[in-house]
Amino acid sequence: MKILWNDKIVDESEVKIDTEDRGYQFGDGIYEVIRIYNGLLYMEEEHLERFFRCADKIRLTLPFTKEEFSQRLHRFAEEVGIKNGRLYFQVTHGAAKPRLHSFPDPKEVVPVLTADIQEISRPMEKLTKGISGGIVTDKRWLHCDIKSISLLGNILALNEAQENGYDDAVLVRDGIVTEASSSNLWMVKDGVLYTHPDGELILPGITKIKVRQLANQLGFKLVEEPFTKEFIVEADEVFKTSSVAEVTPIISINGKNIGDGTPGTITKQLQKAYIDAIEETVKKM
Amino acid sequence: MKILWNDKIVDESEVKIDTEDRGYQFGDGIYEVIRIYNGLLYMEEEHLERFFRCADKIRLTLPFTKEEFSQRLHRFAEEVGIKNGRLYFQVTHGAAKPRLHSFPDPKEVVPVLTADIQEISRPMEKLTKGISGGIVTDKRWLHCDIKSISLLGNILALNEAQENGYDDAVLVRDGIVTEASSSNLWMVKDGVLYTHPDGELILPGITKIKVRQLANQLGFKLVEEPFTKEFIVEADEVFKTSSVAEVTPIISINGKNIGDGTPGTITKQLQKAYIDAIEETVKKM
Repeated sequence: MKILWNDKIVDESEVKIDTEDRGYQFGDGIYEVIRIYNGLLYMEEEHLERFFRCADKIRLTLPFTKEEFSQRLHRFAEEVGIKNGRLYFQVTHGAAKPRLHSFPDPKEVVPVLTADIQEISRPMEKLTKGISGGIVTDKRWLHCDIKSISLLGNILALNEAQENGYDDAVLVRDGIVTEASSSNLWMVKDGVLYTHPDGELILPGITKIKVRQLANQLGFKLVEEPFTKEFIVEADEVFKTSSVAEVTPIISINGKNIGDGTPGTITKQLQKAYIDAIEETVKKM
Repeated sequence: MKILWNDKIVDESEVKIDTEDRGYQFGDGIYEVIRIYNGLLYMEEEHLERFFRCADKIRLTLPFTKEEFSQRLHRFAEEVGIKNGRLYFQVTHGAAKPRLHSFPDPKEVVPVLTADIQEISRPMEKLTKGISGGIVTDKRWLHCDIKSISLLGNILALNEAQENGYDDAVLVRDGIVTEASSSNLWMVKDGVLYTHPDGELILPGITKIKVRQLANQLGFKLVEEPFTKEFIVEADEVFKTSSVAEVTPIISINGKNIGDGTPGTITKQLQKAYIDAIEETVKKM
């Protein structure tokens, strides 16, 4: 596999990650996953904008501008040549020695970029049949708006749901539904869409931005306000959104069917609108 | 620098960390720092016990028993030969491909151990003069009992305190003082010691175990119950404990002196008792 390693494209065997890279010892870094459809880096601008915003939040001085970074990613995508897949990239604070918790001086320690592109296809079975959700207490930190690689909280939540026999977690903090373990959560009740507002408790999803636009265009009312666990289990429809999961229906929560236990009408309309919007953007390339 | 890399002792240039090591992409691993005094791995048993306990909490099947691991660490310490320093080690869930949040199958993916030993001396200036503390909202996750490498929450807290001009954070969650950014916090009021009880909100410190014993031996009353921000700023003495910081006085909080702004009497008694206990253990070797 080819890796974009800082400003070089190399074989993975050539990459040298320092054991004292702060990404490896502190989870001190940020990342993005961009979906590639027919060679298009979908919503690249929004992903890069969030990435640079998150860098500021962890005092990470990126060694390139947004434009330079975009060019670097495109050069990498061309060289790898995968037309349908996902681009993963992360930047850590670099290898500061000796190991100290304090952020390193950006004049002395250079951040480390690693990126790879892997072939994936749309999760058709999950998109068509839906998945199950299980309620899990949201024990993550209060910086969920930072897309950091300190992800163990998300992973433990997913694992708890899976150990209970569910596909993903429906995270609940103080009685309020926040999101799934690595995607935004939405519900429909009496024709109205609900999702948790952006802020420190959830990740401001890029797919969420698009689905918000599409809901608007389709004329659905969207309420971005906190809602309770009791409210979601009585929903007519539930779904989650992320770049890889797209619009994935959640057809049951804790074993109880949502609606009739199949993907809902509005969910299916948004699924279709989402993929239509991608195809339209691809055509314009 | 020599690195203990799984079961081999190698030069750091020989270590190969996969870009898809879950430690690097998810902060999915745990660690320990053991202080070495005169060749003694101080409180090694307690550190290893916590390490194995944390491994269970993140479903990490360690590829060795406690005894095997201890032997490996001793062999490493002997080969490195540093008599006064600190041993750092971490184990991650290994390189699972492709990158998926779910924990990998332990039959297929091997955990990755890395360890190094660096020379350090006791932080005499801080021990003698004390440091300043600044109150910071505790935004970390609710698994603070797991000594994981997903440490960005701790680092952001320390950074916030330092940006405000203080040496370390006095973390406060919902009005309650939890700990410092990477050590346990204690206070003294009217001759009584207070510290936050163990649980999900703090790390059960190894130095805390020892200081608890010493406080007992010295006949001090110790109350392990939650206490408020308002209570700590009125303390007679405040200090923090960790393997590296030992018993470090905190002489001011948010710019306001604690007591007369110098290390307190009970703090100094515990400092002395702590180093006496180490010397006694070293003598018995």
